[in-house]
Amino acid sequence: LGHGTVGSALVRLIDQQHDTISTRNGVDLVVSKIAVRDISKHHGLTSARILTDDPWSIVRDPEIDLVVEVMGGVESTLPLVLTALEHGKPVITANKELLAAHGATLFAAAETAGVDLLFEASVCGGIPVVRPMRESLRGEPIRRVLGIMNGTTNYILTKMSEDGAAYHDALREAQELGFAEADPSADVDGHDAAAKLSILASTAFGMTISAADVHREGITALDPGDISIARRLGYEVKLVGIAEQGDDGSVLARVHLVMVPQGHPLAAVRGSYNAVVIDGQYSGTLMFYGRGAGGEPTASAVLGDVIDASLNLLRSTCAGMGRLQPAHLESMSSSSGEYLVPLEVADEPGVLHVVSGVFARHGVSIAAAEQDRVGSVARLVFLTHRADEDSVQACLTELRMLPIVGRVGGVLRVLGE
Amino acid sequence: LGHGTVGSALVRLIDQQHDTISTRNGVDLVVSKIAVRDISKHHGLTSARILTDDPWSIVRDPEIDLVVEVMGGVESTLPLVLTALEHGKPVITANKELLAAHGATLFAAAETAGVDLLFEASVCGGIPVVRPMRESLRGEPIRRVLGIMNGTTNYILTKMSEDGAAYHDALREAQELGFAEADPSADVDGHDAAAKLSILASTAFGMTISAADVHREGITALDPGDISIARRLGYEVKLVGIAEQGDDGSVLARVHLVMVPQGHPLAAVRGSYNAVVIDGQYSGTLMFYGRGAGGEPTASAVLGDVIDASLNLLRSTCAGMGRLQPAHLESMSSSSGEYLVPLEVADEPGVLHVVSGVFARHGVSIAAAEQDRVGSVARLVFLTHRADEDSVQACLTELRMLPIVGRVGGVLRVLGE
Repeated sequence: LGHGTVGSALVRLIDQQHDTISTRNGVDLVVSKIAVRDISKHHGLTSARILTDDPWSIVRDPEIDLVVEVMGGVESTLPLVLTALEHGKPVITANKELLAAHGATLFAAAETAGVDLLFEASVCGGIPVVRPMRESLRGEPIRRVLGIMNGTTNYILTKMSEDGAAYHDALREAQELGFAEADPSADVDGHDAAAKLSILASTAFGMTISAADVHREGITALDPGDISIARRLGYEVKLVGIAEQGDDGSVLARVHLVMVPQGHPLAAVRGSYNAVVIDGQYSGTLMFYGRGAGGEPTASAVLGDVIDASLNLLRSTCAGMGRLQPAHLESMSSSSGEYLVPLEVADEPGVLHVVSGVFARHGVSIAAAEQDRVGSVARLVFLTHRADEDSVQACLTELRMLPIVGRVGGVLRVLGE
Repeated sequence: LGHGTVGSALVRLIDQQHDTISTRNGVDLVVSKIAVRDISKHHGLTSARILTDDPWSIVRDPEIDLVVEVMGGVESTLPLVLTALEHGKPVITANKELLAAHGATLFAAAETAGVDLLFEASVCGGIPVVRPMRESLRGEPIRRVLGIMNGTTNYILTKMSEDGAAYHDALREAQELGFAEADPSADVDGHDAAAKLSILASTAFGMTISAADVHREGITALDPGDISIARRLGYEVKLVGIAEQGDDGSVLARVHLVMVPQGHPLAAVRGSYNAVVIDGQYSGTLMFYGRGAGGEPTASAVLGDVIDASLNLLRSTCAGMGRLQPAHLESMSSSSGEYLVPLEVADEPGVLHVVSGVFARHGVSIAAAEQDRVGSVARLVFLTHRADEDSVQACLTELRMLPIVGRVGGVLRVLGE
């Protein structure tokens, strides 16, 4: 289902690797039908003779063993995938929005039908992370999953950090290079990362966590000056998705800007690359790094799942998602950590005293403060000791109401242990 | 089999996670016997009642479903593992020396018996890399596998690089911290990395490649001054294992010092951490990073394999290694690349002329040269353009015979594309 960037790369890859796959795995892969929206746009292809514009003819075809969904879309795609599963066909999907919105329904349908629903390609493109988590780390007590899951924003942040580019200039460059859409909100507001995080968190903790369960902040309020300060303090600024499980089993999932210590492996992830870190109690810190998007890397991930599902079919078995529990969620307001708070204030006597008083009243203790002048305004930056999210947000609300305070930038949270 | 650092961590991990594993995977894991060399050394343990000093009583016990081999050793361990397999028991092993020496025999025995022989823990401890390569990347045309596979030498190189420590001082510190053995040769001469590389290369290319097939150089000839020069040129110096497949299907496998460009993800792997990079034609560059050794990380990797083999047992199936082909090996002398050649020479007129003449005679073209004084000797460093290994080695042989040349350090090879 679908013959866009990923679908066409997959057809090429299967064609090129057919004999190797057959020799090594004993699986003979044949692409028998490809559903596209408009057949006339694909003429001239060697695969043109197997094109159809009726996806239902695929998901109901008794001759078809396995369905790959790389067409995207949510509400119109859901019934197709459900029908394929109900007809006993394993489904491989690269569709994070579909899983993030309807994962529970889909996994239940796969369980009922006793077939595979595999989705490596839906999270961070070509990086094998879902399977290692589901299989290699099956017995590992996973404490936390975090990562740089959106290449567009990481490209923009790298440009802002290394070249001192302003957000809008870095965004425009990403758009010109094809890394960012004309409407960049899915990326820059964190929706894309939240969808991926919900899938990873569901897998890691065996719970049904949807994109709507993820606290989400974007990168649009960030100033290159904030990044310079963070770097001077020994951190890189990254848009990170984090899901962590407390001792009571509850999970807090969130996407926001994070100050990553420069020695941490995520700090070295530059440009449009992605990386997922898994902190396990026994395994320690693991990182999986690679291309988070693009036709060929994503097709590579799809193919791994296709072969796996094929072998399972031949053996009359399926992988199963394990039994997902209902999510037990923690809210952002229960979190705590260290915060970097950048402010622009009027350059007049007593300002530092007034602003620091706001922090003091809310019990937020300051670890470091710095004041300098940028043009006609003074720039004030505070790094807090460990503080409660609610207290910091109350500070920010109060600061925004002070006439002497100009811009209150988005806070940057320091990556905790 | 074995109750050392890894074995005891595994027993603790299974104990702690028993109920979660049972709920999520439907597998009820029971440690029924543990073989140790000397029972009297383990008294007082809660698991003492299941200890035995007769490993044969385990591998032949019809009540035992699955065997974990974490005792180490090669010639005395081989018949135990073979017997377990012949008795239809899946075997999970963390023993890289055993696999690197007898992999072909062991995989054939597992294939014949139709049971799993899983070995994630044998390569880079807690990092899931064997399973992703075997399963997620089953259909991917892998061009190259490379990595930092030995934590001891990476710790020593990090110390030399970041603190300017001399090799022997960094080694002593690693020994004091327990990262290095009293006899460090398995690590510093590259034997350990060669064994791991042979296992990864066998898995990546579907061939039987043994440790003896790996070209191997150690780190003992390295001077901190060489590292400084490399860093100034934009590289980090790492001991890297590399296995790459040519267009004709032949594989060159080697372990030696490499200059890794500072933007490459391997350059950021510091201290005792390990990382494996896989370059696939479609997937692009992937990296798997984590703890390459230690009881708990290694136990985590063993447990993932134990659950997988248990599920396969319940489903009466097994993973299989695919059909391994005989190795088609390329020798080091067929390789080429860019080289950094550090020399100490007499500080007298005409030296640069004489030395550069040696390079010219062997057709090795110089990309950059630098001469400075360190104490009473002159230090000459050449960075070559792409050159043949044989020509560079011929240069070094001739240079060593020149009276005006003092030390000829080990060459550093630049990591190629």
